[in-house]
Order: sequence, then C-alpha cells, then structure tokens
Amino acid sequence: METLIQFELPRWLQRYQQSYQASADLEAQMDFLIDVSRLNIQYDSGGPFAAAVFEIDTGKLVALGVNLVTSKNLSMLHAEMVALSMAQQTRGSYDLGAEKPDLSLVTTCEPCAMCFGAIPWSGVRQVVSGATDADARAIGFDEGPKPDDWQKALEDRQIKVISGVHRDKAAAVLRAYMNQGGMLYNSRQG
Amino acid sequence: METLIQFELPRWLQRYQQSYQASADLEAQMDFLIDVSRLNIQYDSGGPFAAAVFEIDTGKLVALGVNLVTSKNLSMLHAEMVALSMAQQTRGSYDLGAEKPDLSLVTTCEPCAMCFGAIPWSGVRQVVSGATDADARAIGFDEGPKPDDWQKALEDRQIKVISGVHRDKAAAVLRAYMNQGGMLYNSRQG
Repeated sequence: METLIQFELPRWLQRYQQSYQASADLEAQMDFLIDVSRLNIQYDSGGPFAAAVFEIDTGKLVALGVNLVTSKNLSMLHAEMVALSMAQQTRGSYDLGAEKPDLSLVTTCEPCAMCFGAIPWSGVRQVVSGATDADARAIGFDEGPKPDDWQKALEDRQIKVISGVHRDKAAAVLRAYMNQGGMLYNSRQG
Repeated sequence: METLIQFELPRWLQRYQQSYQASADLEAQMDFLIDVSRLNIQYDSGGPFAAAVFEIDTGKLVALGVNLVTSKNLSMLHAEMVALSMAQQTRGSYDLGAEKPDLSLVTTCEPCAMCFGAIPWSGVRQVVSGATDADARAIGFDEGPKPDDWQKALEDRQIKVISGVHRDKAAAVLRAYMNQGGMLYNSRQG
C-alpha cells in the first residue's frame, strides 16, 4: 500500500520556462502556455493542457503546470492542479490570497469540474482561459458535472473570470491532439 | 520556482492502519475512519477529515487519506484527494475502474466541490459519506460551489452514492474540532 506521492515538472518544461518574458498582457501569457501545451503532447508527458500562476500586475511567472495524468498515473494531475500546487509550494502557503501581490491562474482550456472546485480553495483572484468547455467536448473530452453558471459561482467569490483568450489557437492544439489519436484518458461517461 | 511536489501519509497513520480488520460492512469502515479523523486532529496533521479506498466486495483497504492541507501547505490535499491518489499509485493506474475488483471511496464527510469533481475521474464505483454538507457548514467549513443535485450527477455516471453512515459520530468529530478552536483553512467566502 503506497503512502508517498511525488510528481515533478518534466525536464523539458524546466528548461522551456526560461523562455518566458514577463508580461502582464494576457495574450502573451496565453501564447506562451499554448506553446507549452503543444510541447506536452510532443514530449508525451500528458494531455494537451498547460496552466500557470502569474502575478496579475507584473505578469511575473510564479509557477507552471502541465497535464501529467497519464505519465504519473494520477487522475488529479490536471494542468491547473499542478500549477496551483507548485505555486503554493513556491509561496509556502496553501492560500495564494493570503499575501500580495494578487495572483491569476491562466489555463489553455476552461477548468473541468474538479479544477473549478479547486480554484476557490487556492487563493487566486483571477482565472483566465483559452479554449472553452465546448472546444474540449468537441474533441471528446469530458469537463465533468460542472454547474452551468460556474463563472458566476467564481465571480460571487470575488474571483474574476476571463474566457476565450486566444481561443482559436488554444482549441487548435486540442484538435491536433485528437487528430494524432491522443488518448482521452478522462472520458468516463454515464 | 518549485518544480517538485511530495507528500506522505503521516507516520502515525502508517502505524494505525494496521489496526484495520477488513470488513465489507460500511459502518465498520466508517468507524475506523472516524477514529482516523480524530487522530488527525490530535497529531495536528490537518483538518478533521479522513477517507479511504476499499474493495467493495471484501472491504479490503486499498489506500488511506487524511486532510493534509495545513501540514503540507497544499489546498488540494483534502482527505479524498489523498486517498484516491494513494489508491491510484498502489494500483499503478489513473483509472481505478479499469480493473476489477470495483472500489469504493469512503469519507468521513460529504465531498466538497473539488473532491466531488475529482470522483468521476478517479474510477471508483461508489462513494460513502458520514457527516453531511450541512454538518460541515454548521461548523463554518465551506463545501464550495457544488451542484445541489451532486448525488444525482454521480449516479448518472454509474457511481453509487451512500450518505449519512454513522453521521452523528462523524459530525461529532467536526464539532470537537471547532470547539478546540481548529483552523477553518478553506473558508474563503464570497
């Protein structure tokens, strides 16, 4: 019976992150992450998703995440969960809202039901997405039993939601993954 | 910038788990976990919650989890997430439903929005809870923006939901935590 869990960002990502030039521009942040999501397919480290935590005001990168479900055999390792955890470890706090500056979670695809539920506990003040739920579902990914008014549920908790940043470019990565026969690892349906 | 996450079950729990006598009886499983949740407070390893993955037919323990949010500084480490991850690592698969025997997640309190969203990705076929959302909210814990019909959403995905097993005993641990001034670490409200 296992009692220890360990996961690390892939080595290619630890190298690639050095190419990020800090920018508060959301399109620039998303462009960087879309490249990361494409590389995650190429390096076969997991599904076609990337996320990061940035300082809202400066665009400074606090932590990165990619989907590691298949390479680590852990269904919770969606890109958002990895990025939030790495950010909390970097800050040394389970609440990213406990201290300034305010932080943003940027993700190449709108969060699934699990990641949506994780966001209020994380302490980020903003969530920015590229591809939408509809784009993910169009290639067969299941976003889970997320409330229809999920954006409002976050806004009600003072978390700003911005969707569709470079949506077409982000969705193109999802389609490329499908076209090359990528595994739909979390598509358990009713 | 951190790139490695690691978390381990507390040493006391690695010892205590040996006291579990395999039983398919849900009340016996819950009794064991309620004791674990109480010990998690005493040993100060996290919030007053415990969970485990059991084989449905035999009651064999596959993996254990306790809330580790405050001791590991990671907001995702609710007892359910820890138990599911330990089970996946034990089985060597991100899908606990990929092979027989079928598995059950047993938790001392109904899952929050994040853990609810994580359940369909985990592959468990059944979720059993002790204390209810209302019991958690009564002591100030926030269950998050979970759909009102969350049980039905799981049942629609062929995941059986059983609530209120030893509810009073499980809720008593939550009240004891509150009465001793336990930290409400994930109570970010709107």
